[in-house]
Amino acid sequence: MAILCRLHAAYGDDLINAIRSALPNEDVRAWPDVGNPDDIDICMIFRMSRGFLRPFGHLRLISSTGAGVDHFLLDPDLPRDVPLVRIIDADFAARMADYVLSWVLFHHREVAHFLAAQHQARWSYKPIRSANDVTVGVMGLGQMGRLTCGRLALLGYQVRAWSRTPQVLPDVTGFAGPDALTPFLEGTEILVNLLALTQQTRGILGRATFDRLPHGAVLISPARGGHLVEQDLLDALASGRLRAATIDAFPVEPLPAAHPFWHQSGLFVTPHCSSTASLETIVAAFAENVRRLRANEPLLNRVDYARGY
Amino acid sequence: MAILCRLHAAYGDDLINAIRSALPNEDVRAWPDVGNPDDIDICMIFRMSRGFLRPFGHLRLISSTGAGVDHFLLDPDLPRDVPLVRIIDADFAARMADYVLSWVLFHHREVAHFLAAQHQARWSYKPIRSANDVTVGVMGLGQMGRLTCGRLALLGYQVRAWSRTPQVLPDVTGFAGPDALTPFLEGTEILVNLLALTQQTRGILGRATFDRLPHGAVLISPARGGHLVEQDLLDALASGRLRAATIDAFPVEPLPAAHPFWHQSGLFVTPHCSSTASLETIVAAFAENVRRLRANEPLLNRVDYARGY
Repeated sequence: MAILCRLHAAYGDDLINAIRSALPNEDVRAWPDVGNPDDIDICMIFRMSRGFLRPFGHLRLISSTGAGVDHFLLDPDLPRDVPLVRIIDADFAARMADYVLSWVLFHHREVAHFLAAQHQARWSYKPIRSANDVTVGVMGLGQMGRLTCGRLALLGYQVRAWSRTPQVLPDVTGFAGPDALTPFLEGTEILVNLLALTQQTRGILGRATFDRLPHGAVLISPARGGHLVEQDLLDALASGRLRAATIDAFPVEPLPAAHPFWHQSGLFVTPHCSSTASLETIVAAFAENVRRLRANEPLLNRVDYARGY
Repeated sequence: MAILCRLHAAYGDDLINAIRSALPNEDVRAWPDVGNPDDIDICMIFRMSRGFLRPFGHLRLISSTGAGVDHFLLDPDLPRDVPLVRIIDADFAARMADYVLSWVLFHHREVAHFLAAQHQARWSYKPIRSANDVTVGVMGLGQMGRLTCGRLALLGYQVRAWSRTPQVLPDVTGFAGPDALTPFLEGTEILVNLLALTQQTRGILGRATFDRLPHGAVLISPARGGHLVEQDLLDALASGRLRAATIDAFPVEPLPAAHPFWHQSGLFVTPHCSSTASLETIVAAFAENVRRLRANEPLLNRVDYARGY
């Protein structure tokens, strides 16, 4: 029995040390120091790559250090008889809400206009609407989407949400299922994508969606690069269909220096910084699931392979 | 009996037309078409200038179209036996909260860092703290300060407030009076100024205040230019005592093109756009006070000349 951890480099040794402290009786190994692959029965993985798990024939638990597991499910060699768990955590969701609110307010309050005017030492007053007059539409009502909707509503925005199955949230107008997508989009001025990436949602941020938004809408997508049809986004910004977009996740990261996104007017690129589970969150969630596995208790936050999240 | 209105040019004719519609039985005159000054018994003023009211010997009401009235009180010729009213309004305060939240999130979420990195096509990940770990200190607990504190707390920030007299707000740590200023500042990472400009608060945003903040604090001041000691702000930004500041109000507006603020690194200038009372708010508040004056009823939102707001 041994645990293999393949973690985000940003943590340095802090995360692996914290995992070892939280699990003093476990043999915790830091990738690439695997040792004998047959020892490994638990893998904790920041970023999955195809075939990564193939050498491990005795796996009993796969744990993601993040919320999205689409990169796991794309691997044809993923052992689907082994449980996969992900992070669902209030602090993790709150950080995502912070990110979304910062960019909703950035666009609603025309901050880019004022920054550009300052660059020219130009006093350029612009009237700004009240949040009460601005409609924000959130796609995806997992924990992050629900928390984000609630906070947007507390700030006075008109909030609507689109989800796979109907959900009732206070002060949020709900839309559910494929048939409701068009009416949802037609009234959305700032579109926030917090969907899981699945076969149903891949490429959903493309021309067909953008064309149903009001002219001059804004897109904020901190979810997955696979949601986005990149050329359609560039076209929508060029035509004015979208007046601005903020994108945090890309099919290839880091975004290559030659990528047209960096210099597209109205497009704001952030480096997958929207939300990272804290070290404390990751360690606590992982240690609890390891304890449950060893004690034959039900695991927490287990992924439904059929649903995709 | 006649009403003289000196209004913000941004409204064009819309505001004066709306006032005339709301007060169909009044003689409403748009400055500079004063007619006989002795007719004028009510003045509605966007921006006061010294001696402006001297020609009007029969004044019974002075109405500001904004929340701050310091520019009225600086006029030695202001007829202090005439009631002065200002705008206190939920929508007006909510717009100010929108402004403050947009810049608190901008600085907390390191948006300037990410914009600069994008300008260089550079993927520059930076870990961001949760709002729960960031302390925001609000100076001034008028309607705008109270609403802003409440919304910051709803987003999870650690909120503290400093006011002239003690006030109790849910989820806000209160500090009151001059002796509490130092402990208030020592724990404040993002300082928000929503004070009225009075003899007591003029120049409060100067070196003595900045030096009591933690190194690398942030200042957001949408209140008044007179609160600020401009050279002290430039020095605090240059030394790193402040890592950033957003300023919306200046002693001379528009801010002159040659002013050093425009090009100071870490300083974000906005053109007095934080909050403007809506046309509907201004007209409704003004029409109600005119009605009350004509009916000899008590006026709403009357300024206390001794207190200064």
